[in-house]
Amino acid sequence: MTYCVGLKLDAGLVLLSDTRTNAGLDNISCYRKMFFFENPGERIITIMTAGSLSVTQTTIARLEEAIEDEMADESTSILRAPTMLRVATIIGDTLSRTRRDIAEQCRDLKQQASASMIVAGQRQGGDMRMFLIYPEGNFIEATDDTPFLQIGEHKYGKPILDRVVTPQTNLADAQKAVLLSMDSTLRSNLSVGMPLDLAVIERGACAVTIRRRIQDGDPDFAQMSAAWSAALRDSFVNISL
Amino acid sequence: MTYCVGLKLDAGLVLLSDTRTNAGLDNISCYRKMFFFENPGERIITIMTAGSLSVTQTTIARLEEAIEDEMADESTSILRAPTMLRVATIIGDTLSRTRRDIAEQCRDLKQQASASMIVAGQRQGGDMRMFLIYPEGNFIEATDDTPFLQIGEHKYGKPILDRVVTPQTNLADAQKAVLLSMDSTLRSNLSVGMPLDLAVIERGACAVTIRRRIQDGDPDFAQMSAAWSAALRDSFVNISL
Repeated sequence: MTYCVGLKLDAGLVLLSDTRTNAGLDNISCYRKMFFFENPGERIITIMTAGSLSVTQTTIARLEEAIEDEMADESTSILRAPTMLRVATIIGDTLSRTRRDIAEQCRDLKQQASASMIVAGQRQGGDMRMFLIYPEGNFIEATDDTPFLQIGEHKYGKPILDRVVTPQTNLADAQKAVLLSMDSTLRSNLSVGMPLDLAVIERGACAVTIRRRIQDGDPDFAQMSAAWSAALRDSFVNISL
Repeated sequence: MTYCVGLKLDAGLVLLSDTRTNAGLDNISCYRKMFFFENPGERIITIMTAGSLSVTQTTIARLEEAIEDEMADESTSILRAPTMLRVATIIGDTLSRTRRDIAEQCRDLKQQASASMIVAGQRQGGDMRMFLIYPEGNFIEATDDTPFLQIGEHKYGKPILDRVVTPQTNLADAQKAVLLSMDSTLRSNLSVGMPLDLAVIERGACAVTIRRRIQDGDPDFAQMSAAWSAALRDSFVNISL
């Protein structure tokens, strides 16, 4: 499985993904699940992926191919689309088509190949937006009421987000929130694993502000994780029933 | 959905269940999911249920019928079975048979009726044991390595259990742990709802020690929930990244 989470805040976007993929418990690999499509200052688009690796890789490859195509126009290239809504539509259509193609190839298997994506970004002159794209290509959008979107193993890490994230959360606290949300998920579910990819995109920058890969054993992450465990245990001890 | 959790500790058993059932989001009801079969001082058996209400109610009704049957013997009545393992086997067989019967009735529907159960208890002279019974009737047992079992919406409330519960946890802390685990689940998932049923069974008592229904608005639970939220937010603020 996978865990990816994105926050859309007044100050910007904060995105975090793990890198574990598995085909059964005995076939575990590390693959990047966060992709950037950038024309710095003009637009930044980030895609995070969950689901069948053949579906997500082929979808990303087709999006790249469409960008590089000499015939590319605003209806096919996400670097030329005039709005983030059109970007989400192109990605949704590509995902849906890829999923159907692969389902057709796999029709003799009982297994279903599927995938979902979080698409976040901003185009100069447009609003910062974040979408969750379903396997069928339709999507929902993050709002001020619900400023975060999750894909993959989302349940373990949801309680902390429900409690601390609002649109006014600053970018430092937001990074802490997504890392603690990931920490709970890593601890409770083997199918989500290090290293992690973290990105911060300040509102209006139309470029990646912070991009960081957090390796297994990263001292800052390990310290935060240990401090959070200790704080939880202390809080637990101090609460009376 | 449902959330039920059971802890098997050195000091005893601590069990907690919600009471919400739903057939779609617009058809929500309140049903007890914790059942006691007791011969105080000789044996206590507790069953918690998750899944299709028609499967769980029919299974419980058949277990009761078998107990009251004049022909009941140790192979059919869970109040006469000589060990907790035999109790789990009878319950597993009854659940599996009921599930198959109802699946046969529903064969024209695409929908599958299924259910799982946690069975915990002790018989005088025997060990305290706790089992998770799968829809097919097979089961697993809680051990010192993993002293808790969960059924239903188990993911939201797992991180706190992973962090604080060990076999040495005392019964007061254990009640706090299951209530906080439930609190995270209630907050993040609408299909789990108040009131709650809490039971504590001290090791060797072979009877229910504490049995409590916690209603919506219960001042102690509300205070604990608020204190935990505040403690989490304080911990969050105090942790550095």
